[in-house]
Amino acid sequence: MDPQKLRALLERVQTGDAAVDDALRELADLPFKDLGFARVDHHRHLRTGFPEVVLGLGKTAEQIGHIVAELARTGANVLATRVADASVDAVLKMVPGARHEKLARAVVVEQQPIADVGRGTVLIVSAGTSDLPVAEEAALTARLAGNRVERLVDVGVAGIHRLLGSRAALEAASVIVVVAGMEGALPSVVAGLTSRPVVAVPTSIGYGASFGGIAALLGMLNSCAAGVTVVNIDNGFGAGYAASLINRKVDK
Amino acid sequence: MDPQKLRALLERVQTGDAAVDDALRELADLPFKDLGFARVDHHRHLRTGFPEVVLGLGKTAEQIGHIVAELARTGANVLATRVADASVDAVLKMVPGARHEKLARAVVVEQQPIADVGRGTVLIVSAGTSDLPVAEEAALTARLAGNRVERLVDVGVAGIHRLLGSRAALEAASVIVVVAGMEGALPSVVAGLTSRPVVAVPTSIGYGASFGGIAALLGMLNSCAAGVTVVNIDNGFGAGYAASLINRKVDK
Amino acid sequence: MDPQKLRALLERVQTGDAAVDDALRELADLPFKDLGFARVDHHRHLRTGFPEVVLGLGKTAEQIGHIVAELARTGANVLATRVADASVDAVLKMVPGARHEKLARAVVVEQQPIADVGRGTVLIVSAGTSDLPVAEEAALTARLAGNRVERLVDVGVAGIHRLLGSRAALEAASVIVVVAGMEGALPSVVAGLTSRPVVAVPTSIGYGASFGGIAALLGMLNSCAAGVTVVNIDNGFGAGYAASLINRKVDK
Amino acid sequence: MDPQKLRALLERVQTGDAAVDDALRELADLPFKDLGFARVDHHRHLRTGFPEVVLGLGKTAEQIGHIVAELARTGANVLATRVADASVDAVLKMVPGARHEKLARAVVVEQQPIADVGRGTVLIVSAGTSDLPVAEEAALTARLAGNRVERLVDVGVAGIHRLLGSRAALEAASVIVVVAGMEGALPSVVAGLTSRPVVAVPTSIGYGASFGGIAALLGMLNSCAAGVTVVNIDNGFGAGYAASLINRKVDK
Amino acid sequence: MDPQKLRALLERVQTGDAAVDDALRELADLPFKDLGFARVDHHRHLRTGFPEVVLGLGKTAEQIGHIVAELARTGANVLATRVADASVDAVLKMVPGARHEKLARAVVVEQQPIADVGRGTVLIVSAGTSDLPVAEEAALTARLAGNRVERLVDVGVAGIHRLLGSRAALEAASVIVVVAGMEGALPSVVAGLTSRPVVAVPTSIGYGASFGGIAALLGMLNSCAAGVTVVNIDNGFGAGYAASLINRKVDK
Amino acid sequence: MDPQKLRALLERVQTGDAAVDDALRELADLPFKDLGFARVDHHRHLRTGFPEVVLGLGKTAEQIGHIVAELARTGANVLATRVADASVDAVLKMVPGARHEKLARAVVVEQQPIADVGRGTVLIVSAGTSDLPVAEEAALTARLAGNRVERLVDVGVAGIHRLLGSRAALEAASVIVVVAGMEGALPSVVAGLTSRPVVAVPTSIGYGASFGGIAALLGMLNSCAAGVTVVNIDNGFGAGYAASLINRKVDK
Amino acid sequence: MDPQKLRALLERVQTGDAAVDDALRELADLPFKDLGFARVDHHRHLRTGFPEVVLGLGKTAEQIGHIVAELARTGANVLATRVADASVDAVLKMVPGARHEKLARAVVVEQQPIADVGRGTVLIVSAGTSDLPVAEEAALTARLAGNRVERLVDVGVAGIHRLLGSRAALEAASVIVVVAGMEGALPSVVAGLTSRPVVAVPTSIGYGASFGGIAALLGMLNSCAAGVTVVNIDNGFGAGYAASLINRKVDK
Amino acid sequence: MDPQKLRALLERVQTGDAAVDDALRELADLPFKDLGFARVDHHRHLRTGFPEVVLGLGKTAEQIGHIVAELARTGANVLATRVADASVDAVLKMVPGARHEKLARAVVVEQQPIADVGRGTVLIVSAGTSDLPVAEEAALTARLAGNRVERLVDVGVAGIHRLLGSRAALEAASVIVVVAGMEGALPSVVAGLTSRPVVAVPTSIGYGASFGGIAALLGMLNSCAAGVTVVNIDNGFGAGYAASLINRKVDK
Repeated sequence: MDPQKLRALLERVQTGDAAVDDALRELADLPFKDLGFARVDHHRHLRTGFPEVVLGLGKTAEQIGHIVAELARTGANVLATRVADASVDAVLKMVPGARHEKLARAVVVEQQPIADVGRGTVLIVSAGTSDLPVAEEAALTARLAGNRVERLVDVGVAGIHRLLGSRAALEAASVIVVVAGMEGALPSVVAGLTSRPVVAVPTSIGYGASFGGIAALLGMLNSCAAGVTVVNIDNGFGAGYAASLINRKVDK
Repeated sequence: MDPQKLRALLERVQTGDAAVDDALRELADLPFKDLGFARVDHHRHLRTGFPEVVLGLGKTAEQIGHIVAELARTGANVLATRVADASVDAVLKMVPGARHEKLARAVVVEQQPIADVGRGTVLIVSAGTSDLPVAEEAALTARLAGNRVERLVDVGVAGIHRLLGSRAALEAASVIVVVAGMEGALPSVVAGLTSRPVVAVPTSIGYGASFGGIAALLGMLNSCAAGVTVVNIDNGFGAGYAASLINRKVDK
Repeated sequence: MDPQKLRALLERVQTGDAAVDDALRELADLPFKDLGFARVDHHRHLRTGFPEVVLGLGKTAEQIGHIVAELARTGANVLATRVADASVDAVLKMVPGARHEKLARAVVVEQQPIADVGRGTVLIVSAGTSDLPVAEEAALTARLAGNRVERLVDVGVAGIHRLLGSRAALEAASVIVVVAGMEGALPSVVAGLTSRPVVAVPTSIGYGASFGGIAALLGMLNSCAAGVTVVNIDNGFGAGYAASLINRKVDK
Repeated sequence: MDPQKLRALLERVQTGDAAVDDALRELADLPFKDLGFARVDHHRHLRTGFPEVVLGLGKTAEQIGHIVAELARTGANVLATRVADASVDAVLKMVPGARHEKLARAVVVEQQPIADVGRGTVLIVSAGTSDLPVAEEAALTARLAGNRVERLVDVGVAGIHRLLGSRAALEAASVIVVVAGMEGALPSVVAGLTSRPVVAVPTSIGYGASFGGIAALLGMLNSCAAGVTVVNIDNGFGAGYAASLINRKVDK
Repeated sequence: MDPQKLRALLERVQTGDAAVDDALRELADLPFKDLGFARVDHHRHLRTGFPEVVLGLGKTAEQIGHIVAELARTGANVLATRVADASVDAVLKMVPGARHEKLARAVVVEQQPIADVGRGTVLIVSAGTSDLPVAEEAALTARLAGNRVERLVDVGVAGIHRLLGSRAALEAASVIVVVAGMEGALPSVVAGLTSRPVVAVPTSIGYGASFGGIAALLGMLNSCAAGVTVVNIDNGFGAGYAASLINRKVDK
Repeated sequence: MDPQKLRALLERVQTGDAAVDDALRELADLPFKDLGFARVDHHRHLRTGFPEVVLGLGKTAEQIGHIVAELARTGANVLATRVADASVDAVLKMVPGARHEKLARAVVVEQQPIADVGRGTVLIVSAGTSDLPVAEEAALTARLAGNRVERLVDVGVAGIHRLLGSRAALEAASVIVVVAGMEGALPSVVAGLTSRPVVAVPTSIGYGASFGGIAALLGMLNSCAAGVTVVNIDNGFGAGYAASLINRKVDK
Repeated sequence: MDPQKLRALLERVQTGDAAVDDALRELADLPFKDLGFARVDHHRHLRTGFPEVVLGLGKTAEQIGHIVAELARTGANVLATRVADASVDAVLKMVPGARHEKLARAVVVEQQPIADVGRGTVLIVSAGTSDLPVAEEAALTARLAGNRVERLVDVGVAGIHRLLGSRAALEAASVIVVVAGMEGALPSVVAGLTSRPVVAVPTSIGYGASFGGIAALLGMLNSCAAGVTVVNIDNGFGAGYAASLINRKVDK
Repeated sequence: MDPQKLRALLERVQTGDAAVDDALRELADLPFKDLGFARVDHHRHLRTGFPEVVLGLGKTAEQIGHIVAELARTGANVLATRVADASVDAVLKMVPGARHEKLARAVVVEQQPIADVGRGTVLIVSAGTSDLPVAEEAALTARLAGNRVERLVDVGVAGIHRLLGSRAALEAASVIVVVAGMEGALPSVVAGLTSRPVVAVPTSIGYGASFGGIAALLGMLNSCAAGVTVVNIDNGFGAGYAASLINRKVDK
């Protein structure tokens, strides 16, 4: 029940236009969706600066295009992740103003200016070139959510000196997203080198006993370095979103 | 190589007491542990305000007591996690000034004042009473690391109204640690109700197809609510530590 | 042995046309399939009001069409589930009077009127739009089996207020089928809000550590809310069938 | 907020003792736990006839005794499941009027008369003698929840004639709980013989590739007989509870 | 219904003492357990020469002793497998005439002479000394079931010449039981050397990635040599029993 | 070393044409492949009456055709299993006299008369129509190996009376192959009804938690009925081969 | 920092052109990537004689061709593994001088002479013809890395005499790579016959419970023969590389 | 057949004391165990310098003591691994001259001098203090097998600078054994820093999603650094043995 309606009800009680019993009955039926926090939900994305998000995985081009177009009509920025290459053209045709972020496998409608609402920089670190699509999904998400984003690529643990040479970048970040497949060791090494929170993203890169990313996932969950938290396999969006929340200024 | 030694070497080059070639050879052998960042390591805990930490799991009372005592001699605060009840007395006897945090299954030496270094409050939410030891381990870790800590207990998803009644507490936190076993659904619900980062801790509470916490772990990794990151099963320490990093003020 | 034959045999014994020893021998060979309950089997579907069912998964269009046509010739209603889009046209061509239920991925032959044989309403609750095909399979099954069916869609746990706003619908149902993928938390929340039996259906919706629905399945099996029972991943038919049995009036 | 308090508030608005704005503010803070359905929760068990339940697994005798005693003070019936033999004496000593149900591994406080609130009979079918503790937990739960309970024991599929000889009992039930370990095939056979809903409980009975009940669980989830739903391994309580909900008379 | 009762019923029909309709009704209720094959069940063990068998695993000494004593009272031979060392004395005390087969972890009551009912010899081959208990359980089972039994021990694949030196024994057997843990490779090699049926028993011997016998089980299921069939991990009894059935003379 | 060569060597020693030391050296190098049992290998298939076998899975049509043609040139019967429909034409074109066994997914070259070398009948029992390809592969293998083969189809455990009506067929067999997917319960029921050895074949029929046949495999390994042995998922050939070995007359 | 730059800095200190404090500051910033060992990295492949390697799996023909061409421009030998047949032509067109190694599924640019840098021979042993692609990948890798390579094919454990006949070849090798799928038993048998190090490669050859090579992997990890080490499933390159390192002459 | 017996037989042929046919018959029966390589087996350990090895895991103190004493009587060095602390005293009492290697959990009888038979040094690298028992088992094995052994302890990847400071030690080794639990990332980093073969040993150190060492095992199998081979979880002996074979001088 929105404040206006509630105020009107109370005023009718005040003026005697409504009996207390009637008002009681009306309040008892008060559906949850009408409470204040539900309204927040409908406007959450615009208010918080986060884009509206559509997971393209397992949806047809038509479905993605339809949903994105509908969300875009509200004026919000929209991010569609995991849009298959074969679906992109159809989606772009259905959504005026949409653009394709090829490496991130995403379609974006950017119609609101993106303010910098972060405390510092979100650094996206990735181990190998095959991890780049997931890393870029994280970077794109973080940027659309109002963060300055930096990248550090191709710093796998088998060539540890490349990572060591970038220690300044690690320390300069406010939060670090680390993307790695295979044995998933990179977050442990990064977390050992810095005191920033590390969000680890296992990727499905590998074969055989990598089991579609399970090896990397387990490696990250068992990290010997404290400060590492983990998201689902290939979940670049989730990592970018969590990093954005972590980087948010808290108004208190 | 510490700055003093390095300066001395350079001064000997400057005065001609050391040949350039000799200095080159000495620098070529420069072991990594002598570089600046290595020294930081040795003093990291004291400087950052984090306690020294010992994982008691799989160690004898004698081993725990020995390590804790040694660390405590440096003047640092020390946290020993997963100390079995049967080991506590022996450990306390070996470490002057140590105390037992029974619910958190920890032994603590607190000899340094704990400054409040956080941006806001770390809120520890737990689903059932059996999840309390893990929740308390997280709470204790966060407090020793310099955070204000709040708790919200017994708010499992099967009685969702209890959680809903605490929405103000959720919004008031800077970062939220959610501890749950069985199906591990609580972090999804919490993350859907708030815009704070959520660190989820699956616990091994359950039986049968809970597989020692795997069900909860998978549930959390597959959370339909963005903003959830996950640590290892029963890893209250890791969650408290990550929450502390997230809550840290970043000086930039 | 059907009653007529058995009666004839006994009458031959009575009249002396058959010796007791011969009758004994004949009865000793009495095959099980001739006992009364076997006959029930052949007519079970028509008698109980359940449709004949064909699982289309892994069958060619020709096989599905052939079986459905044969079953339909008996006059029964027929439900073919998991009919791939590519097979539908061929099946419809082979079966006169068949129709395609696109969302439920089913082909239906409805040639018998469907009586309402349930005690109350079967409510189908689903978490996300991707769960709809499984939910519709459950709804279609329940309706063909003679139940009033209601639906509650898109009430995932990450937006808990939408579910809370529908509590009246939950209480109004006789039995509730809850369909959810990813972390599979919805049945726990539903079961905590109502005192109706909940049949949970995990779906294969998700990626990475959802492992094709295992995460949701485990979540549901470990539900912290009593009253939840579970069927196989994506088994909308099984859930609709079980809900129908639960909703049946028992004549005693 | 309970009706009395709400009425008082409205009356103060009516009389002018409270301004509309103040009332608005007070209502905006209205915590969920004060809504009507929350109060229901506190009295749910007594009202519905279900006992209060404590899961003894992983709790000390002291903890179990303490919780049971506290719940019993409300006058409710109480059921503590999975109480280890070694804990029973201590629990009984702490809870006046409690009794031990040895086979079901439970402690019961029965201080309210148990009305028969079911539509028919709950039949508990078990495969082997080792499955009896789980079967009895289900039976005890169903009886305490107000159901007539029948049992059919030792009817494993390797001696199928014993089950076939009891077909009348199967048909006479309103709902059937089937408890089995090893390959977990019994629910399929039972569901094929009857048209009643079957709640299947896999047990951890077995060794080697039974993997603590996983083989039985998978067997039941993949049942080729429709109408079977499944609960967690060894979850006799859950099955008895679900069977009770299914057997409930629905007042509509 | 036993033949005598059935004959009596038919005679009453014959003499007119029973009406055809009454006889029909009585036959309609004919419970399955009264059919001929059920009676066979009760006497199956004695008739076939197989011993009565009790699985001791997970039973108390009292339970084992009670069941064995009861079975022994029928005059049958009885085999109790997996009797823990700690239970043996109590069992022996409860069962007159019982003896302990220590290596096979079994208790035996042998009160019937054991005829040789096999076509040839059952050969038990085992890989390592740790596999001996399982091998001996198989050997004991086969012998009590009326087979000549030979043994070939300590012929693991890492020392293949020992097995090769025993090829005559392999060819001389009628059926071969192969018991092996770790990688479980022995059945493949044995089946490649002979044309006899091979029953493979994986054992739980090993550690780490042997996963309690899963590695051996998978190895045996994936044998590159045709003719290998597999039983459950550590199931020496099952292998001995299957080998006995295979070695049986078939009277046709 | 074949006998002729060995004899020649010994004769040269006898005549003094070879020194003892030279003969010793030659014998020391005696390669294993020249020992008698190796030669047996090359002729094993023809001698034993088993066909030569090619596993088509994962091979191209060209590879299959090439190998089958080569084996057929020796005059032996040849069985190629798992030949994909798309490969059949190409294979048939390459191998004169080959025929396609469509249901069994096999290509056969039958150029030797097949003698009946079995003790009795091999009975192939299958649960559902989807299990037929695996069942037919087993039947074809057994027939080509010289066995009389009977079939019992569509006797799944959900309609147990169909199986019970065929008990005579079960008892008439010498060895029974049972093919079933989903929960894999059929072998337990069959083994409980008969005293013949049962070779169980899990199939990959099912979906969701059937995990490609794992559920059926585990069900069979954990069979509560003794006498069941198991082969790999979908391994109809292996079951038919093992059944053939079991049915072989042993000449002793 | 390369030696030249470091020497220049020290000389400036020596001559007074640089103050000690300035030099200290410059050294403190010394990035890791400038240390000597980093430079070594860039030239490692040419210096060590190992080829540059590109994993083709999951890359498009264009990506593979681009990377190979770029690496080849440095003059190095290049090995691209796991190049799908469909990609080969495109890759060859993009890289002058490249050739296709069909059986090994690789593309090779061989523009440097390959010196023999090994202590002895690398022997590649494979179990079945389906294992050949992985075996050839290992052989090709070892040869390009400067080793003499021998092969022993089709020596599966089901026909053990073929392996035994090749014992001389086993002993003649310096290191042995054993490639096998299905039960993966071959490395155990090989390691039992020789005293050379054995690098085992499980392949994904098999079906059903082979689980894409897991059965073979577990078999090899649990080898009862000491001296066996294991690489990832199908990782022929890794085995050939490790064997090359083992076979390297160590200059000390 | 040993050379002496064979020579005698040939001499009898030469002198005419044995007919060629008789000699042929005797040779045809030549059992494999009598061939030369079998005798080698019996003396392999002494000849190669490797100790005799007993795996203590799962054996009683009496069994271990008995086997060790028997092996020691041959004069060989003996190594018993995984001897539980509780068994040590009993074992030492049964074996004169035996000593306890406490950290390595081993009992050793060292009665032969240990020659240095290696090409270079075996370096044992371990990540954490909890990994030390496994590391020491590897070190002890390597030393008893005739290698110079060096150790590098406590160089986990979370504190990467400690490892980097020891690069000289890595390059100085001939073969490196890397022991690590948790995420098992250390072998990747080590293999990236050196060109020596790396034998990786996952340990069962960890909890929760480490699954008793599976996480570390998978991490090592998926190493992004070439040159890493892996042994079973906690298999320090196997790693030390394989490293010894790798370090052996090959006489060719």
